[in-house]
Amino acid sequence: MSESITKISDDLKEFAVKRNWEQFHTPKNLSMALIAEAAELVEHFQWLTAEQSQSIKGEKLKEVSYEMADIFIYLLRMSEQLDIDLMSATREKMTINETRFPVKKS
Amino acid sequence: MSESITKISDDLKEFAVKRNWEQFHTPKNLSMALIAEAAELVEHFQWLTAEQSQSIKGEKLKEVSYEMADIFIYLLRMSEQLDIDLMSATREKMTINETRFPVKKS
Amino acid sequence: MSESITKISDDLKEFAVKRNWEQFHTPKNLSMALIAEAAELVEHFQWLTAEQSQSIKGEKLKEVSYEMADIFIYLLRMSEQLDIDLMSATREKMTINETRFPVKKS
Amino acid sequence: MSESITKISDDLKEFAVKRNWEQFHTPKNLSMALIAEAAELVEHFQWLTAEQSQSIKGEKLKEVSYEMADIFIYLLRMSEQLDIDLMSATREKMTINETRFPVKKS
Repeated sequence: MSESITKISDDLKEFAVKRNWEQFHTPKNLSMALIAEAAELVEHFQWLTAEQSQSIKGEKLKEVSYEMADIFIYLLRMSEQLDIDLMSATREKMTINETRFPVKKS
Repeated sequence: MSESITKISDDLKEFAVKRNWEQFHTPKNLSMALIAEAAELVEHFQWLTAEQSQSIKGEKLKEVSYEMADIFIYLLRMSEQLDIDLMSATREKMTINETRFPVKKS
Repeated sequence: MSESITKISDDLKEFAVKRNWEQFHTPKNLSMALIAEAAELVEHFQWLTAEQSQSIKGEKLKEVSYEMADIFIYLLRMSEQLDIDLMSATREKMTINETRFPVKKS
Repeated sequence: MSESITKISDDLKEFAVKRNWEQFHTPKNLSMALIAEAAELVEHFQWLTAEQSQSIKGEKLKEVSYEMADIFIYLLRMSEQLDIDLMSATREKMTINETRFPVKKS
């Protein structure tokens, strides 16, 4: 994993340890927390048209970026708890997708 | 953003462009695709105990890592579409969390 | 559908019409609103143990019942918009489940 | 609750008991199963335009109705486990919504 992501992941672990939250951060619970954050992202877009969703700005865009950050935070926490290298898994999955969705068929 | 994440994000964009999928990748649609992947992650854990969720292995762990990759992929696609720097947003959100959840109160 | 569910569904439609919300209540948008409510339900349980989740009471139980009501409301709105008889579909699905999960195999 | 919903709820309980699934049907686990089904509903609509989502037909409409049935099934299972009267909770929530969203302000 890139240095910066490893550093963020370590800082997130330290944050949880200091607050005695590690006991709650089972993969099961983290998957729930992650989807709850994903839903907060969905909420920002649910009544918008496709076009409106493409042109959010200012405070709304800032809020959306923080919901995305929350998702990323739980993704990194879960990676750490399950000892998964998120970047490698992503590269592997992209290779699978290349095979599954060949360009000519699209 | 770190070099490697930028590279993944660029490759994901190219993947979408080549398949003429960019038209579908509005932030609204991507938020739906992201939560659908988050739900596939939840499905792996829904009938497991907390302890069982901590000791998944082998094929199951591999599948979980790919669900997490899918979430990350949509997170990067949305970052790109909305011109959000995910790493910066995450650092900002972590600073906010430090203030919101002071250590002594936990 | 039973009289009472039909009545609730009609009242929900009237509620939306009066507020000029029908334009937003496409099946696509309603599916997003529904999952956002489902996530609020998940949030109530995400850090609880299995046992704790079984013994929620008072104000917390009331809040949970309202999240469930919100899910049901969007389920009825979507049924109405797509002209689906939710009760019949549920009975059909239960019959399918009987076949899919025979008792002896469990 | 209306007779028919009570009957469906009883049948669902019997279905779970016969398969020895009651042990898995904690409110926590059911909230996860419910959102996983809600996500399958979302998946049907994620790449559709608002208009396309309004005109689904045939096999696709049937599948959507079964996803909605699955959500309703878990909603009833959770109501039963938490001793919540879903119909009453829904009526209460609708009364709250009337106050929260007065017609003139919409």
